[in-house]
Amino acid sequence: MIYLDQAASSFPKPSAVAEAMMEAVNEYGANPGRGTHALADRAANTIQTTRKLLAQRFGASDPRKVIFFPNATTALNQAIQGFPLMEGDHVITTMFEHNSVRRPLEYLKDQKRIEVTYLSGSSEKLIEGLYASMRPETKLVIVSHASNITGEIAPLKSMIEIIKGTASKVLVDASQTAGHFPIHMKELGIDMLAFPGHKRLLGPQGTGALLVEGEVELEPLLYGGTGSFSELPKQPDHWPEKYESGTLNTPGIAGWKAALEELNGLVSRETYLTQKLMHGLLEIKDVMVYGPGPEVERMPVVSFNIGDISSQEIAMVLDSHYQIAVRAGLHCSPTSHQYYDTTEQGAVRASIGPYNTEEEIDRFVQAIEEIRIGYMEM
Amino acid sequence: MIYLDQAASSFPKPSAVAEAMMEAVNEYGANPGRGTHALADRAANTIQTTRKLLAQRFGASDPRKVIFFPNATTALNQAIQGFPLMEGDHVITTMFEHNSVRRPLEYLKDQKRIEVTYLSGSSEKLIEGLYASMRPETKLVIVSHASNITGEIAPLKSMIEIIKGTASKVLVDASQTAGHFPIHMKELGIDMLAFPGHKRLLGPQGTGALLVEGEVELEPLLYGGTGSFSELPKQPDHWPEKYESGTLNTPGIAGWKAALEELNGLVSRETYLTQKLMHGLLEIKDVMVYGPGPEVERMPVVSFNIGDISSQEIAMVLDSHYQIAVRAGLHCSPTSHQYYDTTEQGAVRASIGPYNTEEEIDRFVQAIEEIRIGYMEM
Repeated sequence: MIYLDQAASSFPKPSAVAEAMMEAVNEYGANPGRGTHALADRAANTIQTTRKLLAQRFGASDPRKVIFFPNATTALNQAIQGFPLMEGDHVITTMFEHNSVRRPLEYLKDQKRIEVTYLSGSSEKLIEGLYASMRPETKLVIVSHASNITGEIAPLKSMIEIIKGTASKVLVDASQTAGHFPIHMKELGIDMLAFPGHKRLLGPQGTGALLVEGEVELEPLLYGGTGSFSELPKQPDHWPEKYESGTLNTPGIAGWKAALEELNGLVSRETYLTQKLMHGLLEIKDVMVYGPGPEVERMPVVSFNIGDISSQEIAMVLDSHYQIAVRAGLHCSPTSHQYYDTTEQGAVRASIGPYNTEEEIDRFVQAIEEIRIGYMEM
Repeated sequence: MIYLDQAASSFPKPSAVAEAMMEAVNEYGANPGRGTHALADRAANTIQTTRKLLAQRFGASDPRKVIFFPNATTALNQAIQGFPLMEGDHVITTMFEHNSVRRPLEYLKDQKRIEVTYLSGSSEKLIEGLYASMRPETKLVIVSHASNITGEIAPLKSMIEIIKGTASKVLVDASQTAGHFPIHMKELGIDMLAFPGHKRLLGPQGTGALLVEGEVELEPLLYGGTGSFSELPKQPDHWPEKYESGTLNTPGIAGWKAALEELNGLVSRETYLTQKLMHGLLEIKDVMVYGPGPEVERMPVVSFNIGDISSQEIAMVLDSHYQIAVRAGLHCSPTSHQYYDTTEQGAVRASIGPYNTEEEIDRFVQAIEEIRIGYMEM
C-alpha cells in the first residue's frame, strides 16, 4: 500500500507512538490529576510534559494555556463558539477554510446574529481583502494557515500586520501546517492556534490542542468535572481545567508526546517529493492541478483532476488496482471547490508525509498516466 | 501497587486492549470514513462494529444512534446542552450527580432560565420526590444510575415508571454502572444513556458514548467536518455524522472494541470483594462508611473516613507507605458531600474492579486498621 492520504491522517507513525500508548494503557492507566497516588501522578506528568513540549514548539508563553482536545475540530469549536461574540460583531475568514471553521461560524451567524466576511483569492488578494474588510466591529479573524486542498499557504505574517493594533484577535487553523512549518505564536502575534495531533505532528488520532497566547477569555464548550475546585457549582476559572472537563485521553497524549520527541530528528524530503509529483502530473495530458505551481513554497498536498472523470472513481481505481491510498471528493471545504469550480467533480488529493519515498511518487505518477490512458483513449 | 481507584479509571485492562490500539496505530492509521481506500475502510469497519456491539449490549435499536465521544462528560454535555430546552422548562435530577451533570445544568439555568429540581434522599425518598416534582413543564429527568461515591444504586425502574407517559425524556448517566450491571434501554424505557469506555467497560481513556433511543432531537455540540455531505454550510441531519464532527479516536475505539469482546468471558467477584471490604471496614473503630450497608445490592465503590482525619492525608499515606491507590476529596460531586456532611473532610474512596483479589482487600483493610492506630492512638 502506498499511502498518499497524509493530509487526512499521517501514516505510518514513528514506532515510539504505539509503544508509548501501550505503556500508558498497561503501566499507568489511571485518571490523571484526579487521584492521590503514584499511577495518577505518572499520567499527570505525561500530560504536563506534553503541554510543555507543545508550548515550546509553537512559541506559546504558558503551558497552562495548552488545552487538550480530541481533535482540531473540537479545538476550533472551543475557540469560535467560546469566543465572546455578540450581536453585530464581525468575523473575517477565508473561502479556504475547512468545515470545522465554516460550520461553527454559520451556526453563530444564525444564533448570535454576527456578521461573517469570507475573503477570496490568492496571496495579495487575501491581504487586500482583509485590509478592505476590517472595521471597528471586527472582533476575530480566522485564517487557515494552509489549504487542505491545494497546499497553498496563507500570507499569515502580512495579514497579522494588518490586524495588529486593532480590537480583533487572530485564530489560526494550523491543521495542515503544524509540524511541517515552524510556527511561533508570540513572534507572529497569533492569539489562538488550533491543530490536531494526528496529522503532521505524527501523533495518534484522538488528539488535538488549542494554544492561547495573551488575553483571550473563552466560555467553555463543556461543563463538568475538573478534578479540582470540585465544590464550585460553576466551572473553575483556572487554565487548563476550565476547558478540559472529563477524563483526558492519556494514552493518546502519551503517544503524541513520543511523536513530538521523534519529530526533531526527522529529515523531511516532502518538499522535494511534492515538486517531483507536481512536475510529473503537469506533464500528463488532460491533468489539471489546482493551486500554486511547483516553484511556490507550499504544503505537500496536491489536488488535481483528469479531464472530467469523477474524482471518486479515480481514487477507487488507485485503491483497487494500484493499492494507492488518496482522497477524493470535497475534502470538507466546499467553498474552496466553489473557488476552483470543482463542486461537481471534487478533486483527487495526494498528500505526502515524511516517510513517503521517491519510488512511491514515481509509481503514483505512472498510475495516473495509465488511468488517463484507460479512460481518455479507450 | 494495589489499585483501588477503579471508579476513576479501571486498571489493568485486558491485554487485548493495548494490542488492538497498537494494531490500529501501526496497521490502519487512516481517517475512517473520509477516504476512498482500504485503510480508511478498515478504520471505518472497526468503528461500525463497535457501534453495533454497544447497541447490542445496551438494548438500543439503532447502531447509528451510538455516538462516540472522548469521555462521558462530553456525551452528557451533548445530551444536556443539546436538548431542546427553553425558558421556563423544568429539569429534574438528583443531589448525587457528578459535576458533569450538575455544571451543565447550572450553566443552562443561567443561560436559558430553565428550572432545575435536585432530588435528595435514598431509594423510596427519590421515588417520592420525583413523583412530587413532576409537572407539565418537566422536559427532562437526569438520573445517575449509581453514585460514584457511595455505590448506591438509583431505583431507576420505579423512577422511569413515573416518567412514562409524560412529556419528559429520561437521560441516564451510567458512568459507574455500564459494564457492571446489564442495562437494556428499550426494556427500561431510557431515552438517552451516557457512559465512558474507560471505567467498567475496560476500554482505554479517550472513549465514551451517548446512545439515543427513539425520538430525541439534539442540537449538535460541535460543528465541523463530517466526511459526508461536505457541501452543506450547516451540519448534515444524519446520525451519527451530525454529532461526530472531526476525526474520531480510532485507536481508542479499537481498544474499546477489544475490551467489549473480552467482557463476556469475565468472571466478576466484585460484589463478594465489596462485601468483604465493607465488613472489614465496619469492624474498625472510628471508621464511618457512607451509603448503603453491605447487604444492599450496590456498586463496588466504598467511601469512608477515619475519625476526623483528612481524607487526602489517608490517601497519601496509603500511597506512600502501602502502595495502595485510592481516591480522596470530593469526587466531583459536591452535593453528595453536602448530603453526607463531608464537604470539609471529603471521603476516602476505594473502588474494586474485576481483576482485584481477595488478598488485596485483606491488605487494604489491614492498612486502614494500622493507619487508624497511628493517628488515633499515638
